[in-house]
Amino acid sequence: MAVVEETGVASAGRRRERGGRSGLRESRGHGQHGPGVPYIIRNIPTYDILSEENLQRVERTADRILAEVGIEFRDDDAALDHWRRAGATISGRLVKFEPGMLREILKSTPAQFTQHARNPARSVEIGGKNVVFSPAYGSPFVMDLDKGRRYGTIEDFQNFIKLAQASPWLHHSGGTICEPVDLPVNKRHLDMVYSHIRYSDRPFMGSVTAESRAEESIEMTKIVFGADFVDKNCVILGNVNVNSPLVWDGTMTRALRAYARANQAAVIVPFILGGAMGPVTNAGAIAQSLAETMAGCALTQLERPGAPVIFGNFLSSMALRSGSPTFGTPEPAIGSMVIGQLARRLNLPLRCSGNFTTSKLPDAHAMNESTMSMLAAVHCGANFILHSAGFLDGLLSMSYEKFVMDADFCGALHTYLAGVKIDDNELALDAFKEVGPGNHSSAAPIRWATISPPSGIRRSPTTIPSRNGKPAAPRMRPSAPIGCGRRSSRTTRPRRWMRRSTRRCRTIWPARRRAWPTPGIKEEDADRMSAVPAGAPP
Amino acid sequence: MAVVEETGVASAGRRRERGGRSGLRESRGHGQHGPGVPYIIRNIPTYDILSEENLQRVERTADRILAEVGIEFRDDDAALDHWRRAGATISGRLVKFEPGMLREILKSTPAQFTQHARNPARSVEIGGKNVVFSPAYGSPFVMDLDKGRRYGTIEDFQNFIKLAQASPWLHHSGGTICEPVDLPVNKRHLDMVYSHIRYSDRPFMGSVTAESRAEESIEMTKIVFGADFVDKNCVILGNVNVNSPLVWDGTMTRALRAYARANQAAVIVPFILGGAMGPVTNAGAIAQSLAETMAGCALTQLERPGAPVIFGNFLSSMALRSGSPTFGTPEPAIGSMVIGQLARRLNLPLRCSGNFTTSKLPDAHAMNESTMSMLAAVHCGANFILHSAGFLDGLLSMSYEKFVMDADFCGALHTYLAGVKIDDNELALDAFKEVGPGNHSSAAPIRWATISPPSGIRRSPTTIPSRNGKPAAPRMRPSAPIGCGRRSSRTTRPRRWMRRSTRRCRTIWPARRRAWPTPGIKEEDADRMSAVPAGAPP
Repeated sequence: MAVVEETGVASAGRRRERGGRSGLRESRGHGQHGPGVPYIIRNIPTYDILSEENLQRVERTADRILAEVGIEFRDDDAALDHWRRAGATISGRLVKFEPGMLREILKSTPAQFTQHARNPARSVEIGGKNVVFSPAYGSPFVMDLDKGRRYGTIEDFQNFIKLAQASPWLHHSGGTICEPVDLPVNKRHLDMVYSHIRYSDRPFMGSVTAESRAEESIEMTKIVFGADFVDKNCVILGNVNVNSPLVWDGTMTRALRAYARANQAAVIVPFILGGAMGPVTNAGAIAQSLAETMAGCALTQLERPGAPVIFGNFLSSMALRSGSPTFGTPEPAIGSMVIGQLARRLNLPLRCSGNFTTSKLPDAHAMNESTMSMLAAVHCGANFILHSAGFLDGLLSMSYEKFVMDADFCGALHTYLAGVKIDDNELALDAFKEVGPGNHSSAAPIRWATISPPSGIRRSPTTIPSRNGKPAAPRMRPSAPIGCGRRSSRTTRPRRWMRRSTRRCRTIWPARRRAWPTPGIKEEDADRMSAVPAGAPP
Repeated sequence: MAVVEETGVASAGRRRERGGRSGLRESRGHGQHGPGVPYIIRNIPTYDILSEENLQRVERTADRILAEVGIEFRDDDAALDHWRRAGATISGRLVKFEPGMLREILKSTPAQFTQHARNPARSVEIGGKNVVFSPAYGSPFVMDLDKGRRYGTIEDFQNFIKLAQASPWLHHSGGTICEPVDLPVNKRHLDMVYSHIRYSDRPFMGSVTAESRAEESIEMTKIVFGADFVDKNCVILGNVNVNSPLVWDGTMTRALRAYARANQAAVIVPFILGGAMGPVTNAGAIAQSLAETMAGCALTQLERPGAPVIFGNFLSSMALRSGSPTFGTPEPAIGSMVIGQLARRLNLPLRCSGNFTTSKLPDAHAMNESTMSMLAAVHCGANFILHSAGFLDGLLSMSYEKFVMDADFCGALHTYLAGVKIDDNELALDAFKEVGPGNHSSAAPIRWATISPPSGIRRSPTTIPSRNGKPAAPRMRPSAPIGCGRRSSRTTRPRRWMRRSTRRCRTIWPARRRAWPTPGIKEEDADRMSAVPAGAPP
């Protein structure tokens, strides 16, 4: 594939032109944090590992699973009615699909769509060559090296939103970053959505744990964006899981339908641990994943044809001796690459999972698995990469330290996905002629002229003070930051940086928030929005 | 590209058939350590990121560098004579090459060759779809968390040989794993080569720091393999570096010619830190690398047409604020992928560098950079991956802990490079029919029947004992092992494992060594070999 000679990052091109003082204020409000971009436009091809023939074999197997084994749709009569009308074979709650039927239904899905942010400069394009990094999602615990592992609270939840917002390397505010267990289960979705709206200017996700909670999440976006705008545009995502193997339960399909009905994007994600919720073989798990995802995606189109939907993927493996889930292992990394090829053949935007690990601490083990997993997501062509930062402990914990390291790695991936630019300036023949054999390249004036920002901010490794010839311990102890100090000084002092950015969020936020244009929002709605107290009923 | 339905690992197929007791002893001597294989045959395609058009632009730039700027060959009149006879334009020590001239000379190189090991079952194929992992090379220091960083000794050197030999995931014994600075500079190459011969049954590398030392390294292999065998087969590699930019110094070209003259493989490696020994732009550094490597590879063919040679690559970047080298960053990872494409267009075996990092401790930072760098090596199609284990501190230190973690990651890469197998058994349609929706896959008998060994030995993460809700500290402290405990219990207890394997080497070694067949070796030569005392003159 050709590598086009463009920079691999999207410019904040939707910024509205305005003059004078208000223009200046607005441009400050919309401005990027340093080199941050709203999302990445990849400039390297996807890594396609499977042949056409083998892809067809996987597809045929998925079709046979759908036709001969079928998928159960539990506790959702409306879903069964949809399938009945579409011509599927229904017996009780088991639905069987003729080969080709789901592919036909999926033709109405958009291959790419915009998810709008409150700050239009932060809106993201999902699909095509675009890549969006979003924080980890769904941990009951949070962890840092000072306080250890404990249940997540709304304060932690908001801290992570602020951290994501402060990082130039993330593009999305995420959803249930951690469970705020200090709030009642039936109310916490309101606080979570409110927190995303209040503390981030990036796009975000809503609740899926009940149809009513999905609807209320969407309802809150209508207060912000206006009902008309929301009906015509995607402003919120809902991440729904298949109850693998081959079961969609009513909680998920009702939430899925709520998002589709409101023209918002459901992310359809089978959760398959090979050996438990699917066969232990990678090929079998991939075929199952394809079958389950196609069924979920098609159901969104039966609810509302043309509604945006994302083809999701959460392949992982299981420790076969203990039954424990494992993450960041080579099998799912390879599996993701195949899933990417299959999603593109369906012309659907792809979600993949990012910095996965089973490690219980943000250590070498964690970053080894994370890096392998995240690179698979990036190589497979994922457009929306959930779990890009903070994932630890097999998703049981959201880690502050890992979040900072992962965000830093996301920064490196901006450079990686920009690929290599080939033109006369970059090939630098004139510099070779000028410098000649044996001389240092710093002699060439071209040297500084061509520095791209990610290289420019990279710094040398910290020198470790030594006592008695041993490396000083602090960098390895909980009281000191962990590794990953190469790209920006902020990453070598995560705690100080976090404190500073949290403080900065608190002070800058209210002013900046007022300055954002909120498309379609009326003044009275904005007041209503601000008046929703944390934890209050809708 | 098609993924063929074969396992991605080479079998120890060259084992000789023999019956009776001696056959049993021999098969023990040759046997694999658990799931170890002599080398990997990759079953996933290479990751090609640059278009034909852009590859040609890079090649044209390299040709113009060679023709218009030229390369200096210092202190080696024989090399200049070679170039003169080949038709290059020489002025003083500057050599300029007509476009196409080097490509023509390179046509005599073998695209793939065997490097023979003392144990024939451990011989490796270098080139084609084969991948060989070799330990890190060239650190003056060694490091562990107990004793800190100190100069390397011959004891450390031998420890690492034993560790590599004990790991099922490495394929090569490497070369100057660390500098044994307790031995005199002009003698230590003898001890290093002797240690590889004595403590490993895998292939290894010799010295390049002087022509005489290269010749003596090769001479020692003749004692082991026999002079005739060595003249006809590759048994030792010599890793020579370009003095970038665009300078080959006499020490390196004389060593290079010594290896080629003896029909042994030189590995030709420019060492380019973008911004110092080459332009700061990735495209320029790649073009320079191609020019320098082609010149070195061609010189081997002028010395002895048909001699094996490896196209090497050591692209890296520089922190532009401090001038420090950086390793494991995204630019060289992308650059390696392009270098891979260029090497394949020359039909040459490719060396790439593996688990690179600038981190000063074996921490999260180290494994993040290492993993990115190693995956680039694997994706770009490298056949011989030097620095696969132990690289730390920007190559200043060889780390015991990092060695163990890297070797573990090499294990994961065996599974990764095997890709995904697509056949009826793996697609497991029958298992879906049997298990049905909603049931656990352990119900299916197919589950256990299809487990591949790497998955089978994977274990669940260690549970961390907790005190007062905080993760117990030991796992992060120097006195406890670091991360990476997922695949095999040996990796969770690196120190204990190291002690055990070192002990095992000491006790098993002499017996096993006697049992190996050494092709072409005569009884009296074997005695002569054993009689070389450490540090003695040749």
